[in-house]
Amino acid sequence: MKKVVVDSNPRQKIVSLTQIIHDMHDQKKEQTLRLKRVQQSILALQADACIITSPVNQYWLCGFIFDGYLLLYPEGEAMLFVRRPTGIADERVIQIRKPEQIPSLLRSAGFSVPRRLLLEADQLTFSSATRLQAAMEMPELVNISGELRRLRAVKSAYELNQIRESAQVHRQVYELIPSLYRRGMSDLELQIEIEREMRLHGSVGIFRSFGENMDIFMGSMLAGDNAQAASPFDFALGGAGVSPLLPLGANGTKLLRGMTLMVDMAGNYRPWMDDMSRTFAIEEVPDIARRAHQLSIDIVRAIEQSTRAGTPCADLYLLAERMVQEKGFQSYFMGTTQQAKFIGHGVGLEINEPPVLTPRSEEILETGMAIAVEPKFVLPGIGPVGIENTYIVHENGLENITLCEEEMMML
Amino acid sequence: MKKVVVDSNPRQKIVSLTQIIHDMHDQKKEQTLRLKRVQQSILALQADACIITSPVNQYWLCGFIFDGYLLLYPEGEAMLFVRRPTGIADERVIQIRKPEQIPSLLRSAGFSVPRRLLLEADQLTFSSATRLQAAMEMPELVNISGELRRLRAVKSAYELNQIRESAQVHRQVYELIPSLYRRGMSDLELQIEIEREMRLHGSVGIFRSFGENMDIFMGSMLAGDNAQAASPFDFALGGAGVSPLLPLGANGTKLLRGMTLMVDMAGNYRPWMDDMSRTFAIEEVPDIARRAHQLSIDIVRAIEQSTRAGTPCADLYLLAERMVQEKGFQSYFMGTTQQAKFIGHGVGLEINEPPVLTPRSEEILETGMAIAVEPKFVLPGIGPVGIENTYIVHENGLENITLCEEEMMML
Repeated sequence: MKKVVVDSNPRQKIVSLTQIIHDMHDQKKEQTLRLKRVQQSILALQADACIITSPVNQYWLCGFIFDGYLLLYPEGEAMLFVRRPTGIADERVIQIRKPEQIPSLLRSAGFSVPRRLLLEADQLTFSSATRLQAAMEMPELVNISGELRRLRAVKSAYELNQIRESAQVHRQVYELIPSLYRRGMSDLELQIEIEREMRLHGSVGIFRSFGENMDIFMGSMLAGDNAQAASPFDFALGGAGVSPLLPLGANGTKLLRGMTLMVDMAGNYRPWMDDMSRTFAIEEVPDIARRAHQLSIDIVRAIEQSTRAGTPCADLYLLAERMVQEKGFQSYFMGTTQQAKFIGHGVGLEINEPPVLTPRSEEILETGMAIAVEPKFVLPGIGPVGIENTYIVHENGLENITLCEEEMMML
Repeated sequence: MKKVVVDSNPRQKIVSLTQIIHDMHDQKKEQTLRLKRVQQSILALQADACIITSPVNQYWLCGFIFDGYLLLYPEGEAMLFVRRPTGIADERVIQIRKPEQIPSLLRSAGFSVPRRLLLEADQLTFSSATRLQAAMEMPELVNISGELRRLRAVKSAYELNQIRESAQVHRQVYELIPSLYRRGMSDLELQIEIEREMRLHGSVGIFRSFGENMDIFMGSMLAGDNAQAASPFDFALGGAGVSPLLPLGANGTKLLRGMTLMVDMAGNYRPWMDDMSRTFAIEEVPDIARRAHQLSIDIVRAIEQSTRAGTPCADLYLLAERMVQEKGFQSYFMGTTQQAKFIGHGVGLEINEPPVLTPRSEEILETGMAIAVEPKFVLPGIGPVGIENTYIVHENGLENITLCEEEMMML
C-alpha cells in the first residue's frame, strides 16, 4: 500500500522514509499486542478459536484488509485464509478459494477444528455466518463483536497520536470554512466545498461506522429548521438529506441571515478518527442562539473539570442534563421532535465506538479512551447550536485534542 | 423528504410541482406492483410472510428508509413496524421500540405469527437475524435476498427512465473532465475535482453496492501501473488506494505523458444508477494502448449487434473472450495479476445487480434489465484502457444509454 502525499496541500507534512519504516515496526508490535488481547478474550469466553472477517478488525489486527478469514487460537500465530487479493507479502497467508477448505487445511497442519467459535456476529451477515458455520463443521457460534469493540475502545499511544493528528487536520479544514462561504449558498453547496477541502487534506472519503442504522456521507451539515427533521439513523441529530435514499444531513436549505449552521463533518484524516462540530451564525442570530451555544461550551468546560479515568459515563450525561434543566433548555436539548438521549461516544477506527455517554450507561471511563462530547441544541426557527470536542481520557483528567475556536463564528 | 435543486448547476432541469405530484402517484403505483411481486415470491417459496429490513429494499417497496421491519403476508397490505423516525405520514406505520413487540401486535390485530419467515439473510447481520427470529417466536428462516435481487433486476419504465436520466448527467460530468485536468496533477487530485462536479450535479455521494466485499468511495480512477494492483474487493479492476483502510482505486499516481487513465466514477444521480467508464490518454500513448482500446469498443459493438432479450448472459462473455483471443490480448484482459472473469453486471438501486456477465452464468437477459458492459484491458507500463456502457435490454436489442464519446480522449 503506497503512502500518498497530496502535493497541493503544503500544510501536510512530508513523511520521511525513516518515519515510515519506524511506523511499520511500531505497527507490527501493536498488532502483536492486539492479537494477544484477543487471545485472552478467547480464553475468557471459553472458546476454541475466533474468526475475524470485518475490514475494520482485520485492519486493526493485521494492518491490511482482505477477503477472507483471520483464524486465531488462544495460543500461537494467526492464520490468514485469503480469497483475495493474491500475492500478499505475509507468511501467515494461506490462499483459499472457499471457506469449506479450512477444516482439512487445519487438520493437515496438526490443528483441531474449533467446536466453539467466536465470530463477529454484529457485522457478518446471517448468510455468511451460517455458511461459515457449515464449512467449519457446525461449531457453536458465539458473538465477539462487542468484546472487540471493548478492546478497541482503549487505545495505545500510537492510536491516540493518530487521533490527535487527525484532529489537527480537522481544525485546518474547519478554519477554511469562512473563506469557502459565499452569500446565497445552500447548506449543500457549502458542504460540497468543505468535502473538497477534506479530500485535499487527506480524507479517505469513506466514513466508517458500526451498525446497520448508520448510513452517512462524509459528515453532516445542518442549517435552520432542517435540524429538526427526524432521521432513521442513529446519529446525534438528523436532517432530511437530499435523497430518500440517504435521509440525513443537508437538504439544500438556503443559508439566510438569522440562521445557524452546524458543521459536523468527518475527521477521517487518519485511520483513527476524531470527531468535532462547530456552529456558524449567518450574519446576526437571535440572542437565544448565543445563550444556548454558550451553555454547550459551559457544559463541556464542566465536564472537562469533573472527568477523569474512573468517572462513570452516565455522570457526564447527568451533569449536562442538570445544567440544561437549570437554564430551562430541555425542549431544545439534542433535538426537538426526536431527542437523542446521549451526549457523546467513543471514537477510533469507527466513528461510534464504546463507551456511549448516556444516562443509563454502566461503562466507566478508562485511561486511553477517546471520547467525543457533543451537547447540542436545536432552536426552532433558528437552527442547531453547540460544539463537539474529542478528548483523550487520562488518569488525571481529559485532554482536549480538538483545539479549534469554540465561539459561534459569523459567516 | 424535500426535493432539492442545486442552483449552481444551470444544466439540471427544474422539476415542476405537477411533475413531482405525477411522480409521487406513479411511485405509489409502482410500489404497489412491487409489493405484489414480492407476495407472489412468498407464495412460491411456500413461506408465511417476509420481513424487509435493508434500506435499499425498504426504499424500493415504500419509497423511504426507516429503522424497523416491513412485514408482508402473501395477501393484504404491508405493515411497517418502525423504531425511528417517529411521525412518518403513512397509515401502514406501527411505531415500536423493539421487535419483541411484533407478535402480540399481530395477534391483537387478528393475524397469525409466521412460522416460515423470509428474511434478507445476505444483508441482515447474524445478530439481528437471530434476535428477530427469537422475537418472532422462532420461525424457520429462509433467505429472500437473492429473490428480491432477481425481482429488482427487471426494471419498470419508470425505473429505466431514472437510469437514462442518471446517464445523461453522468455524461455531462465526464465531458467536464478535460477542463478539470491540469498538467502535473495526480489521479487523486483529478478525482477530487470530479467528485466536486458530481456533487454539484446532484450525486448523493454514497454509492450503494451489494455484498460484504464492495467498499468504495464515489468510484474508481486508475492511472498507469496502479491498475495492476490487486484489491480485496469484488470490482472489475483494483488499484492500491491511498489508505490501507480503503485499498481500491487512485493511489496518488502522478499523471505523466504516455500513461492512460480510466475514469469509472459513480453514476448515482438518481436513486436508480447507470455505470460508465471512459479512458483518457495523458498526451501521447503507445500504439498498443490505442489498439486495446479499439478492441474494447469493437467488443461492445459486437455485443450490441448480437444481444437482445433471450440472449444467455454467458454468450456476452464468450463473444468478448473470442475477440480478445483473436487479437492475442488475453494476458491484459480484465487485469493482469488478478483477472476478473466477467465483463459486466446489472445496475439499478445498487451498482452490482443481477445478471452477471460471466462465462458460467446461467442467467438469460430479459426485457427491462439494465446491464453495464465493461471489457477492459490493463497494459503494464501504460495503464488501463477500454470503455463501459450501460444498456437497457429490449425485445429486439440493446439500447445504449451512455451516449458519451468512446474514443480515448487526450488530456
